[in-house]
Amino acid sequence: MSRTDQNNVGIVEPRFFTFAEAPDELTLESGEKLGPLTLAYETYGELNGDKTNAILILQAFSGDAHAAGYHEDDDKPGWWDNMIGPGKAFDTTKYFVICSNVIGGCKGSTGPASINPKTHKPYALDFPIITVSDMVNAQKHLIEHLGIEKLLCVTGGSMGGMQALQWVANFPEMVRCSIPIACTLKHSPQQIAFDEVGRQAVMSDPDWQEGHYYDSGRQPERGLSVARMIGHITYMSDQSMEAKFSRKLKTDNYSFSFKADFEVEGYLRSRGDNFVKRFDANSYLYITKAMDYFDLSEDKLFPKGTTVSTRFLVIAFKSDWLYPSYQSKEIVQQLRMRHVDVTYCEIKSTYGHDAFLLEIDEQTQLIKHFLHATYQQ
Amino acid sequence: MSRTDQNNVGIVEPRFFTFAEAPDELTLESGEKLGPLTLAYETYGELNGDKTNAILILQAFSGDAHAAGYHEDDDKPGWWDNMIGPGKAFDTTKYFVICSNVIGGCKGSTGPASINPKTHKPYALDFPIITVSDMVNAQKHLIEHLGIEKLLCVTGGSMGGMQALQWVANFPEMVRCSIPIACTLKHSPQQIAFDEVGRQAVMSDPDWQEGHYYDSGRQPERGLSVARMIGHITYMSDQSMEAKFSRKLKTDNYSFSFKADFEVEGYLRSRGDNFVKRFDANSYLYITKAMDYFDLSEDKLFPKGTTVSTRFLVIAFKSDWLYPSYQSKEIVQQLRMRHVDVTYCEIKSTYGHDAFLLEIDEQTQLIKHFLHATYQQ
Repeated sequence: MSRTDQNNVGIVEPRFFTFAEAPDELTLESGEKLGPLTLAYETYGELNGDKTNAILILQAFSGDAHAAGYHEDDDKPGWWDNMIGPGKAFDTTKYFVICSNVIGGCKGSTGPASINPKTHKPYALDFPIITVSDMVNAQKHLIEHLGIEKLLCVTGGSMGGMQALQWVANFPEMVRCSIPIACTLKHSPQQIAFDEVGRQAVMSDPDWQEGHYYDSGRQPERGLSVARMIGHITYMSDQSMEAKFSRKLKTDNYSFSFKADFEVEGYLRSRGDNFVKRFDANSYLYITKAMDYFDLSEDKLFPKGTTVSTRFLVIAFKSDWLYPSYQSKEIVQQLRMRHVDVTYCEIKSTYGHDAFLLEIDEQTQLIKHFLHATYQQ
Repeated sequence: MSRTDQNNVGIVEPRFFTFAEAPDELTLESGEKLGPLTLAYETYGELNGDKTNAILILQAFSGDAHAAGYHEDDDKPGWWDNMIGPGKAFDTTKYFVICSNVIGGCKGSTGPASINPKTHKPYALDFPIITVSDMVNAQKHLIEHLGIEKLLCVTGGSMGGMQALQWVANFPEMVRCSIPIACTLKHSPQQIAFDEVGRQAVMSDPDWQEGHYYDSGRQPERGLSVARMIGHITYMSDQSMEAKFSRKLKTDNYSFSFKADFEVEGYLRSRGDNFVKRFDANSYLYITKAMDYFDLSEDKLFPKGTTVSTRFLVIAFKSDWLYPSYQSKEIVQQLRMRHVDVTYCEIKSTYGHDAFLLEIDEQTQLIKHFLHATYQQ
């Protein structure tokens, strides 16, 4: 794919929106107040005259606002570029696509590495615990700032799917349709357990320094790398690891040492090493905690008696064991109990949780048709 | 269960066997030589006159030789006590049961924490890399020392099952039957990946000190604890975690902090903390590496043309995702291709990999009958 292909969005610019200046700080779910806040975002395509063609794309846990196209000087496009562009699932010749980052992150939005206006130092652990609902409440300010009263669609995979659910829970009147992909109504104890081990890996690294590492010249790189390695195992499936690595060795024979003998070991180590260059360890803690706190089960998605006109397309993947399809079926069950219009599709895939980034053809077919039908209504 | 119950083996004593003194050191798979070696072991029941009733029980990765009965002053019996004793699966009124520890470990056998006779200091990383075949070759010396020419049975779960396979691969004439439980012919890339992340957690702890921590007053406790937490997630199933913890909180509400909010978090932290008190971090590295190197796939279990009279009972558990049942079926397939007498059973269970320690009734039925039939032959 070249940067000037007909079917990509070309060069895009990172954008930033700052709001919630004192005394109008955002009130968080914890009761604490936070502000001013900056949200990083990008847009692709054009908002139509009556502002009815806006789609909000939400990122996964370690993602960012750069979902499509190329930044100046970049060789690689955004993380969902194969889904966003002229003629693609999210067709930028028809729709105005917005991708918003999350608060708590480290990709241009306010998070633990940002400067605390009260101390003029990075927040570190003085940053308040945020929730998925807080992320979405912040994004609502951005959508209003863009002059949009009602979104055509909110969507995303993994934590992006959780935000897509939370958006409808918080602002049902603002969302015409929602496409939660490879996600859940609530983290299971196994999902909490994997997150907690990742957090413990970070927090047990002496370079973490109770979170106050920003000005110390040392960062908890080893702990964060281990946390990321665990993550990568859960993103792939047993099958996709077998297909990609099998028991292939990096050299001809066993080294009879603790070097990386197997290709899979080298892969995980390099993924860990790369991650620490692009991600803040405290953001890792805050965002995983937000996911663990997330719980829209029972009547928390829509209270009993609510009438919801938002339509849903729920997508899961067969080999995804991090967010197994039974969790997507629980979303569908909740929606059916509230008489909400919902379509469910479980896509056959061997890619595991990563499938939402890789199974493009089937997702494109499903999403294109669903968006078109909603837009025409 | 009381220490004096009719159906337990009562008070037992740890035993030790030292061999392979210079110049008769054990030649390892790596080509290196190692000795003298000590193996910790225990026995339950009595060896019969013609020495035909001996059963060798092999331990899982973090286990030890204390499989049944009580040590003086202990409140808890050995790790497979519900399977070993009068009237139990391994009936000590009929059979002489031996449980052997492994070299490389830290439970009384020679391992990286042992004194290197050449330096009079702990081996640490000067301990050579050992394999499952090396463990078994060492155990053969113990069996010969006990005067046993042919074992009625070799068995174990998890890494114990791998040893039960390796025993027949190395010494087919010495084993009448083998019961590998919840194990595999070779580690998959996913299994290697989990082991590697655990090793990285240990080795990235600055207190590991390249393995030379024994005399430093500091041990890589944080890294080893994280490694163990990862392990515990893989030993349980999604279902058994849901049944045990669900999303139960330790207190009434979210703490909005990085404390352990959920019971599952507290459980994992305490399991990690307990493990570091009883296990040596370097042994963790050596034994996981041995499991990753283990590979009896294709004709490595039995070369083509071999005639093997050892009978097999292969047991797997439905919810075990660490050693999924397809891996046990691969063992069965290999055995069938060599015309070996093999029975396969997949036991329904929600306990995950831990099932081999918990699903007692079904295992007892299967094993009792299989052992009796073999003994009568």
